[in-house]
Amino acid sequence: MNFSRIDTSKNAKMADVEAAMAKLLSQNDCVMTSAALYHLKSGGGRVRAELALRSARALRLPRQITIAISAACELLHNASLVHDDLQDGDTARRGEIAVWKKFGPNTAICLGDLMVSAAYSAIANASTPHLPEMIAHMHRRVSDVISGQHADLESICVSIDQYNDVARMKSGPLLGLPVELSLIAAGLSEQVSAAVAASDAIAIAYQTTDDISDAERDISAGGLNFIALVQGDMASRAQAARLHASRHAQAAIRIAKTLPNGSGNGFISLAEKFDPVATMLEAI
Amino acid sequence: MNFSRIDTSKNAKMADVEAAMAKLLSQNDCVMTSAALYHLKSGGGRVRAELALRSARALRLPRQITIAISAACELLHNASLVHDDLQDGDTARRGEIAVWKKFGPNTAICLGDLMVSAAYSAIANASTPHLPEMIAHMHRRVSDVISGQHADLESICVSIDQYNDVARMKSGPLLGLPVELSLIAAGLSEQVSAAVAASDAIAIAYQTTDDISDAERDISAGGLNFIALVQGDMASRAQAARLHASRHAQAAIRIAKTLPNGSGNGFISLAEKFDPVATMLEAI
Repeated sequence: MNFSRIDTSKNAKMADVEAAMAKLLSQNDCVMTSAALYHLKSGGGRVRAELALRSARALRLPRQITIAISAACELLHNASLVHDDLQDGDTARRGEIAVWKKFGPNTAICLGDLMVSAAYSAIANASTPHLPEMIAHMHRRVSDVISGQHADLESICVSIDQYNDVARMKSGPLLGLPVELSLIAAGLSEQVSAAVAASDAIAIAYQTTDDISDAERDISAGGLNFIALVQGDMASRAQAARLHASRHAQAAIRIAKTLPNGSGNGFISLAEKFDPVATMLEAI
Repeated sequence: MNFSRIDTSKNAKMADVEAAMAKLLSQNDCVMTSAALYHLKSGGGRVRAELALRSARALRLPRQITIAISAACELLHNASLVHDDLQDGDTARRGEIAVWKKFGPNTAICLGDLMVSAAYSAIANASTPHLPEMIAHMHRRVSDVISGQHADLESICVSIDQYNDVARMKSGPLLGLPVELSLIAAGLSEQVSAAVAASDAIAIAYQTTDDISDAERDISAGGLNFIALVQGDMASRAQAARLHASRHAQAAIRIAKTLPNGSGNGFISLAEKFDPVATMLEAI
């Protein structure tokens, strides 16, 4: 036996996820591959891949399934970024020129499509009898996020309830998916609804926190922003937003704690970042 | 036993495929669903679904797998139409207003994404151990078709060889996929390369035939057209195009005949339509 061939680092790592994504986007040697690698190289927090790695490890999923879920979720997220930037006319992404601005709108449309397709090819590498259920769930969450993105673009939001709906549908599905797919792969489908609820709450906390810093720009552009939906002077509106975010971050943490084997710990770390009240108290 | 419950029409039909597609595009009650159903209602030849029904029946695949393959291929094709119309600025599709023109470019981008995702959810309904291989192959062919569409948009074509490459990459993958997936589901992966070769040849025959009628419009718009790549007066250029199409249609028929159990019969019917020389001889 050749001992040098034994893999001493069995745990899936982010580098494995990056390699899986790059491979699935490089099946044809052309401009599409260049655009894909350009976008991936710009980085980003890889928040969804990290959530998948943490929940899959907590549930002791095999390495191959862990990489499959992580790459699939991160590819879907990046597809949404490439198309969102084009739809919103945002010219920069992560300090670099956005794909549509650098390679043209047609390339951006093609690249988003390629990334959605690659996400499903990634998940098909998960060798498990739960694969059909995982794919059906992936499509349900993709449907949700597309409806959320569409509702956001149309800005049909007039009440806090509608705001919450748009926020959770726009950001919740792809934040929840890493943990939800891990639970399904672990044979724990009955826990998926709790993961959905936790990711919904994180999405609202995230969106509301984000709105505080983007208030001026969003409101002048007529875009959707929590600040525009509440009354009072700017300081009291910002305080209302902070309380709204905190309430949902705390709800997310409570729900995430109920998930089995600490599979919700990634959710908890994330929710803590979007709890502006707790962050302010810590700073005192 | 309740005999009235016995299904006397076990064969998958186009109506089953339509129902499967509509269901996967209607998971959220919103504008997206309306746009999806609007586009599907405009019809189209359902050529890819028909190819899948024919090849799956020839290979005696179960009803559920037949519907899964048919719906997946037709959804991918319609996703490509919705995005192509936007990219090409075509305002009409099948005599109706194109999705992007009726619902706006943002909705068209979202709808194409939804359809790609729905295609993979459709294929996941194929209950077979070959599912991972089918999905990996689907993504390979989607990568091909995206590269083809991109190359066509960029019009980087100067020789007949390059023209053939663009034509087969733009139209071949989604014409071949119905038969290719049927072969994989039947455990006949070793036959896939022949199906790919047949669909490549059909794609070239189809594109060249199409170019004869579109010559004037394409050339004045600076678009890709076979007629623009050959010398001589218009009549001799058109004749060159007809010969080019016929040669590839005949090649497709020869290859399709080698496919097992008549699974290539759908290819043969299609290739016969894109053989302008044979069609002219018949008319004499």
